[in-house]
Amino acid sequence: MKRILLVVAYDGTNYHGWQIQPNGNTIEAELNLHLTQLLGESIVVSGASRTDAGVHARCNLAVFDTNARIPGEKISFALNQRLPMDIRIQNSMEVALDFHPRFVETVKTYRYQIYNAVFSSPVRRLYTHFVYHSLDIDRMKQAASFLVGEHDFKSFCSIHSEAESTVREITGISVTRENEEICIEVRGKGFLYNMVRIIAGTLIEMGKGSMTPEEMQRILDAEDRSEAGPTAPPNGLILWDYQIPSLPDFSIKSS
Amino acid sequence: MKRILLVVAYDGTNYHGWQIQPNGNTIEAELNLHLTQLLGESIVVSGASRTDAGVHARCNLAVFDTNARIPGEKISFALNQRLPMDIRIQNSMEVALDFHPRFVETVKTYRYQIYNAVFSSPVRRLYTHFVYHSLDIDRMKQAASFLVGEHDFKSFCSIHSEAESTVREITGISVTRENEEICIEVRGKGFLYNMVRIIAGTLIEMGKGSMTPEEMQRILDAEDRSEAGPTAPPNGLILWDYQIPSLPDFSIKSS
Repeated sequence: MKRILLVVAYDGTNYHGWQIQPNGNTIEAELNLHLTQLLGESIVVSGASRTDAGVHARCNLAVFDTNARIPGEKISFALNQRLPMDIRIQNSMEVALDFHPRFVETVKTYRYQIYNAVFSSPVRRLYTHFVYHSLDIDRMKQAASFLVGEHDFKSFCSIHSEAESTVREITGISVTRENEEICIEVRGKGFLYNMVRIIAGTLIEMGKGSMTPEEMQRILDAEDRSEAGPTAPPNGLILWDYQIPSLPDFSIKSS
Repeated sequence: MKRILLVVAYDGTNYHGWQIQPNGNTIEAELNLHLTQLLGESIVVSGASRTDAGVHARCNLAVFDTNARIPGEKISFALNQRLPMDIRIQNSMEVALDFHPRFVETVKTYRYQIYNAVFSSPVRRLYTHFVYHSLDIDRMKQAASFLVGEHDFKSFCSIHSEAESTVREITGISVTRENEEICIEVRGKGFLYNMVRIIAGTLIEMGKGSMTPEEMQRILDAEDRSEAGPTAPPNGLILWDYQIPSLPDFSIKSS
């Protein structure tokens, strides 16, 4: 028996999210199906982040146990032969039998991508949230700075969340613009349900001028979801990167 | 009667190219259908570049004549309400009744995008050509430099072409890399059928090391399609920009 860690990239457009659903195709179901066929034994993966329907990943993680003799690093190549093109394993490796990415310290980076122009872009429509209203990036940067550090992010947590504590730490947040595209990059050890999308939705309000950047502090203090902006749509969100301090060999780079 | 110029962006993934076909959906057919419905008269557009099936455009051009009273610059907004999301008008404006983008001097820019890594990227798969073999960008740059200027590009022209002369001028070509992505940008006043895709396919051979950069001169001199590399696939190609010296107001920027 050995445990394999997978680095999984996917285009979430045509999936009902990560987690297996009674109806609808999911990333987890595709991985289980094709790993089971590849390895000839019943495989059940356990994921690090249960991304929502429509959310993309450059780097999500999953582990599974197998008795198969194929070396861990070869699984990526063999599995990619079977998976649909909108899911690609970026790396695979053997890890300790008790390793699980949800139960070790990790640093996670999300990107929220906005296309800000008069008309949307056909070739970017699946991976950016289109905003017609002109966004002031300096206001967004200023507003974002209030979020850095350890805070109670209850105002930025979907009311459906089952989290016991809503205190989280954002270790870094940046807002950058390149031509029509604005990228909000948020880094932290853990996130609440829909947290990045609510942060993005709120920063868009600041960028539009509907709220002042200073109101971000008031929204944090309110600990009330209704004070923050709307949850930005899923297609702009991409799970971008994982760092695992206890696994120094880990890298999402396959090359 | 007035003539309207449209700047058309599209994701070519789900289309059989620009030009109307007996079977299969095309950009031209979509524009004719929705303009006819919008303006209440039979509209037939005439395009500047007949891009192939699967090729994308950030900026293609089309003109049509209409008696409708809607101002030229409003047509973009009204038409986008009707078009599918993978086609977006980026600008519309009234031009002289005898203006046609195929019959005035224009400078056209194409980009050919390559994703060069061990595994392909789900979120870039529709807009890049995946190359597993490591590419040496310095060799590609050196090879590309032989193409700048006026040459007989017969070796870079699909044998199905009906062009009378195969002499064309490339005014600029660049090869740049950003992480896994390589972008070949080619600029010129006119291109032969499949010319940019054959240039890309040949530069990829140079990048792999299958041909030396100096062989580019020999390929040009041979005036023989079979001497050049393969035609690179359509999904990596995007018609990026048009400049029209005789139309100083023209800009693809909608904002």
